[in-house]
Amino acid sequence: MSEASPVQTVDLNSDMGEAFGLYRMGEDEAILEVVSSANVACGFHGGDPEVMAKTFGDARKKNITVGAHPGFNDLWGFGRRVVPHTIGEIERMVAYQIGAAQALSAYAGNPIKYVKPHGALGNLCENEMDVAVAVTNAVKAVDPKLICLSIADGCQDRAAREMGMAVASEIYADRAYDDEGRIVSRKLPGAVIHDPEFAAARVVRMVEAGAIETVSGKLIPRVIDSICLHGDNPSAVALGTRVRRELEKAGVSIRSFA
Amino acid sequence: MSEASPVQTVDLNSDMGEAFGLYRMGEDEAILEVVSSANVACGFHGGDPEVMAKTFGDARKKNITVGAHPGFNDLWGFGRRVVPHTIGEIERMVAYQIGAAQALSAYAGNPIKYVKPHGALGNLCENEMDVAVAVTNAVKAVDPKLICLSIADGCQDRAAREMGMAVASEIYADRAYDDEGRIVSRKLPGAVIHDPEFAAARVVRMVEAGAIETVSGKLIPRVIDSICLHGDNPSAVALGTRVRRELEKAGVSIRSFA
Amino acid sequence: MSEASPVQTVDLNSDMGEAFGLYRMGEDEAILEVVSSANVACGFHGGDPEVMAKTFGDARKKNITVGAHPGFNDLWGFGRRVVPHTIGEIERMVAYQIGAAQALSAYAGNPIKYVKPHGALGNLCENEMDVAVAVTNAVKAVDPKLICLSIADGCQDRAAREMGMAVASEIYADRAYDDEGRIVSRKLPGAVIHDPEFAAARVVRMVEAGAIETVSGKLIPRVIDSICLHGDNPSAVALGTRVRRELEKAGVSIRSFA
Amino acid sequence: MSEASPVQTVDLNSDMGEAFGLYRMGEDEAILEVVSSANVACGFHGGDPEVMAKTFGDARKKNITVGAHPGFNDLWGFGRRVVPHTIGEIERMVAYQIGAAQALSAYAGNPIKYVKPHGALGNLCENEMDVAVAVTNAVKAVDPKLICLSIADGCQDRAAREMGMAVASEIYADRAYDDEGRIVSRKLPGAVIHDPEFAAARVVRMVEAGAIETVSGKLIPRVIDSICLHGDNPSAVALGTRVRRELEKAGVSIRSFA
Repeated sequence: MSEASPVQTVDLNSDMGEAFGLYRMGEDEAILEVVSSANVACGFHGGDPEVMAKTFGDARKKNITVGAHPGFNDLWGFGRRVVPHTIGEIERMVAYQIGAAQALSAYAGNPIKYVKPHGALGNLCENEMDVAVAVTNAVKAVDPKLICLSIADGCQDRAAREMGMAVASEIYADRAYDDEGRIVSRKLPGAVIHDPEFAAARVVRMVEAGAIETVSGKLIPRVIDSICLHGDNPSAVALGTRVRRELEKAGVSIRSFA
Repeated sequence: MSEASPVQTVDLNSDMGEAFGLYRMGEDEAILEVVSSANVACGFHGGDPEVMAKTFGDARKKNITVGAHPGFNDLWGFGRRVVPHTIGEIERMVAYQIGAAQALSAYAGNPIKYVKPHGALGNLCENEMDVAVAVTNAVKAVDPKLICLSIADGCQDRAAREMGMAVASEIYADRAYDDEGRIVSRKLPGAVIHDPEFAAARVVRMVEAGAIETVSGKLIPRVIDSICLHGDNPSAVALGTRVRRELEKAGVSIRSFA
Repeated sequence: MSEASPVQTVDLNSDMGEAFGLYRMGEDEAILEVVSSANVACGFHGGDPEVMAKTFGDARKKNITVGAHPGFNDLWGFGRRVVPHTIGEIERMVAYQIGAAQALSAYAGNPIKYVKPHGALGNLCENEMDVAVAVTNAVKAVDPKLICLSIADGCQDRAAREMGMAVASEIYADRAYDDEGRIVSRKLPGAVIHDPEFAAARVVRMVEAGAIETVSGKLIPRVIDSICLHGDNPSAVALGTRVRRELEKAGVSIRSFA
Repeated sequence: MSEASPVQTVDLNSDMGEAFGLYRMGEDEAILEVVSSANVACGFHGGDPEVMAKTFGDARKKNITVGAHPGFNDLWGFGRRVVPHTIGEIERMVAYQIGAAQALSAYAGNPIKYVKPHGALGNLCENEMDVAVAVTNAVKAVDPKLICLSIADGCQDRAAREMGMAVASEIYADRAYDDEGRIVSRKLPGAVIHDPEFAAARVVRMVEAGAIETVSGKLIPRVIDSICLHGDNPSAVALGTRVRRELEKAGVSIRSFA
């Protein structure tokens, strides 16, 4: 970037607070050192009131922005299965979780600023417009000032803008993109990037280009407000740390979108 | 009452929205014709997002004030068992439920105005000061403008006033009081009043006297902002209807405390 | 029937024991007067250890045969939603429930004799061979002497016979059949038969013909060991009572297949 | 031991299979290298059908005896809280879990041989005779050939013998005993032994003496059929490995009581 250009910023987000009772999940403490935004589970696919309050409070001590991370009511499946619901049920199930997160984040002195759907619900929000609208309706009904953190150019990304909501668009640090700009299915080889060095270099290229980079090297322009680091794969901390360092080296400042 | 006296008013409240999925509970439709305030279950001891949104919405059509009705996370036991918790866990468990109720009541266009603890949690709030303070802390942290609906002269009733919260004090239409002013245990004979006529006459006497009437006929002064009708006993509708009619006949106007 | 012919018998079965904690479901007491076999929920889509033990015990007093009625682990959706599972997960989820039912039925002195899958799982067993095999594998692994109660000519009906298991084939008293012999979807008009008189007459015709009767009046031969009365629709008791009476009038004896 | 004495044997047991869905718990793989008996959670305080079947199967490959490990229905609290129940409810709740474990252990080709209550339920079985009898009633009703693994000289230990059940008595490798022969409460200093070397030497002394060793060095005679290693503390694997090695060095053979 030339000297005259404004300082570029991007957000780093990760799922967090997905423990349950005595059960641990992810490495929240280490991830909190890396991210600028924490997506906090709301007790349906993971998380409980204790974990939520602690996570909101821990994030507060590090000035990290927090958001609600609602999912399907399926602790056994960790929110990764599509439990069949009507559109109205999805709306109300998401509203419920946002409210719980608002309350506990207020309790912890770190009110949520955004909502990002989890797992199978997040996938539906990328690809199915009626679900995307339902989730956005829920956010809007509960608090229209909440930001929708959504997959760049996915259904919710577009729906929420049309509905007049504030939107932050995210890309993935550890997922490959195909030439249509869609995330490559986990079932295909090379779908998940495990090498921190490669992931970090790719993220820097994408942020600088304002585009996602596909498996064939194609660049597809995207609004990039945030980079999702994921929180539950073994290399998440190493990968996130490297991504942050390389972005900062490249002169990109890490700051929440909120 | 003389012409110069102000019109006396009292609130009638009942538990509601305690169905779960396909499982029904109580006669919400009929009870909504009687009460001025509806205590809506929050999904822990009963209720789910569908039931909550519907109940808030149904109450709205009848201009009925709604409140959150948090309980222990024990659907199997319907919130009537004391699941051991630390005081901090109670605080956060209640905050979670209040938030969920805030969200879904906002969604339904009928925001909650108060919080009343359910079942075993309600009993603890009457009798154990640390639990009473924890529940009140939760209310205050989530929204200090919410009113604490609590058992007249119980621990929470006193704690919440000291903590500067708005309080509404309730007595029971269908429960006997002993000479210490405590509710007679369900395990003792005569603890629950089933006769609508007797219950209604007693309620009128208590409201007019500003006092509870004990089993021996003694009157003990109490602030009476609301009458709890209960929602889950077979004669609830008949009893509530009679109580309302007799109060109105006596010139007492039924209006929410909120 | 001529004197020489053997006495014709058929079983009547109904879902039962689907209450949960304080939540009631169905009219078990009345249905127990009608059926010869009770499909008892196993705590996943409905039921709990208390309800199970009571239902097995109540059935014992009336000499009613009992079976396990496993479903998806989805109390909120009452087992009527297909929660995505691998085939192996279905196998083990069903084995778990059969074991629980074996234990509580032994405890109540009325050991289960058969297994019938519930709701969405039952539908899958009719129509998807891999699920049908998985459920049958579970039955066989837990106790190969248990009978598979399955929808006549559905996938499990055929799979279980091929796997060497004892099978009882059932038709529905209150569901219409199309000309392919499939149950008409609930979404279509006329799918559910509410008139007890019509339902009973149709059942008698079907049992006497050894065939299902389709909406166009066509008869399609079927093994008919049992008639499913369903337990959760408002006219279940009236319908079941009428079906039983008309069958007995026609000289068909009601007796469990076990 | 003199040459003429029979070879002494003792069992080593540990809790296992307490994961849930994607949530891990304990180090089952490593513990399976150490124990001769595995107490497998039954889905109430931990465990699910997948984990259960896998644990029974893994144990089978190592010729390890398996037992059911029923607990309170409280995943959030991991079975460590006393959820209030009637005695009858405890009986049926335990029977349910034993049945589920029987089914999945049969499915995995490694049928359970014993039952050991978990956590808060285990504590009650040591100290409250009515709970001890209820749990033993459940075992007996489901399968009277199952062995009751119980805390040496606790209530269930005595009740089960009187009821004619086979009993295996256990002591703890990592818990201190007071001079009354009771386990020192976790709330007191020194209650839990973390040093593998000390724990192993103490276990050898106790097994050789046929007595528990109290904090003051007193020996109190006890039947010792099994040593509980616990499964969920960080030093469990190191401690268990050391205990096994020292026992074997002392000529004690590790073999299940079953």
